[in-house]
Amino acid sequence: MAKILITGSKGTLGSRLAEVLQIRGHEVWEVDLQHHKEERYLRADIGEYRQLERVFEQNYDYVFHLAAEFGRINGEEYYDTLWKTNVIGTRHILEWQLKKGFKLVFMSSSEIYGEATEPVLTEDFPMQKTIIQHNDYALTKWVNEVQIMNFERKHQSPIVRLRLFNAYGPGEYYHPYRSVVCLFVYRALHGIPYDVFEGYSRVFMYVDDLIPTIANAVDAFKPGEVYNVGGIEYRSVKELSDLVLKYTGGDPKLVRYLPEDKHNTVSKRPDIRKAVADLGHNPRVLLEEGVPKTVEWMKKVYEV
Amino acid sequence: MAKILITGSKGTLGSRLAEVLQIRGHEVWEVDLQHHKEERYLRADIGEYRQLERVFEQNYDYVFHLAAEFGRINGEEYYDTLWKTNVIGTRHILEWQLKKGFKLVFMSSSEIYGEATEPVLTEDFPMQKTIIQHNDYALTKWVNEVQIMNFERKHQSPIVRLRLFNAYGPGEYYHPYRSVVCLFVYRALHGIPYDVFEGYSRVFMYVDDLIPTIANAVDAFKPGEVYNVGGIEYRSVKELSDLVLKYTGGDPKLVRYLPEDKHNTVSKRPDIRKAVADLGHNPRVLLEEGVPKTVEWMKKVYEV
Repeated sequence: MAKILITGSKGTLGSRLAEVLQIRGHEVWEVDLQHHKEERYLRADIGEYRQLERVFEQNYDYVFHLAAEFGRINGEEYYDTLWKTNVIGTRHILEWQLKKGFKLVFMSSSEIYGEATEPVLTEDFPMQKTIIQHNDYALTKWVNEVQIMNFERKHQSPIVRLRLFNAYGPGEYYHPYRSVVCLFVYRALHGIPYDVFEGYSRVFMYVDDLIPTIANAVDAFKPGEVYNVGGIEYRSVKELSDLVLKYTGGDPKLVRYLPEDKHNTVSKRPDIRKAVADLGHNPRVLLEEGVPKTVEWMKKVYEV
Repeated sequence: MAKILITGSKGTLGSRLAEVLQIRGHEVWEVDLQHHKEERYLRADIGEYRQLERVFEQNYDYVFHLAAEFGRINGEEYYDTLWKTNVIGTRHILEWQLKKGFKLVFMSSSEIYGEATEPVLTEDFPMQKTIIQHNDYALTKWVNEVQIMNFERKHQSPIVRLRLFNAYGPGEYYHPYRSVVCLFVYRALHGIPYDVFEGYSRVFMYVDDLIPTIANAVDAFKPGEVYNVGGIEYRSVKELSDLVLKYTGGDPKLVRYLPEDKHNTVSKRPDIRKAVADLGHNPRVLLEEGVPKTVEWMKKVYEV
């Protein structure tokens, strides 16, 4: 049993991770932006150094650092908060790690691969070739990885980086900056029109296929490693939309079909063999199972 | 004649640039962190969006964006201010450029080349090969360049990037984060011991060889271009120290000779042909001329 802190514990992934780590018998502490009722919860903005002092009055064996501004468009429209939280905040965590000596598991993103056109992305690709990240969100995640590599090199800080690819599922509450699955399901259920960019495919990963892999980093912690954590289901966004319409009973006329979004990155497929080998990553849930589960959860939450 | 704003106008380079642009007949406006008496001066922290509103109530033909936290060690010790000023601040300037349409000249740094071991660095090198910047200061400057490339691509923002290499000379007031020339001269004059890392050479550039080149960007403005702006004098730090001792009359016993600084980057030589051709860059002042001028200025300023 380990004592574990989760930053961003009230987010879509953080809240599920907290559950799974507790079920596995760990003592889980949480930090997020707002007040909450839980006993082992501390409120802090990780971009604010002083607020972290209370969080690190005690010692942790592991810190799972999930707190971040998330998403490409969110990052463009809230770039000031983005840089403060993601880059100054992560550097704060790295500084606290120097003082306190915990093991750190950092959530990076497939976005760091930018518009790499390789058919399959291996973890070392960004070290082989210059990648220009085309949005500030992606850039913050790559900066975080460089900050981490520098701390590993200078201070031997024990850190594992996980590059997450497009998770979806129950627990993702709707707002306009959410994943494409969340957006489609919510909009189909509420009769709100939405756009499908044709000719665009991506790898989908159901949240229950992701969370155990993240949690496994406790026992399988290998300092200095970086892992792609993605699904195996490479599907078009059009296929996803068709499934969403089927399971929500949404009106097909709500959907507008458009050519590929020029601002988005090209579709990416990860090589996940390393995560399979080291972290027991084992994605299994197909959209045919994950979409109806997401629909059922959202119907209950939004009472539609 | 153009109407020109200089951010960071009270810095070592900004103050000289303001003089030169005024002598050339331009209407120069200034912005920096503190209050000052000049009529065309506006106080603002460029990391604070609201404070920039007053700065951009009027229109400028050009903005020379020099305001930045500077230096490797400064950037490590003040990383929060660094990210806020350099990255959020520069993004603010890019956003204001969208609204106001000025031409932007951005000061980047040789630091973006990281520990590249190529004997001579051409401007396109970072696009050919991954460079890991080994400190947050270098990382902010590379992030700025990526932000700029993204604005050029998405919005056709007219921007020129200048990568400055190690300028020194009169106008650089002493503190511990300054250039090696400033540190050595001040310390030799004041009888303060200093360290020389042996086996380490770099390109030196006297400030009067740099400022006209920056100012030339007004008439020679080519949007989308990036230039190395460096000197031609590749000398060892030991040679510099010997010259400093000679012109200050400093006690040779003040100097401690050490092996190469592991935290510093290897020595870098720029290919400056592009700046010579496009910006009339013409570095001529050798250390034998520049060091005594710096010594004379510093003697006057510090009354030693």
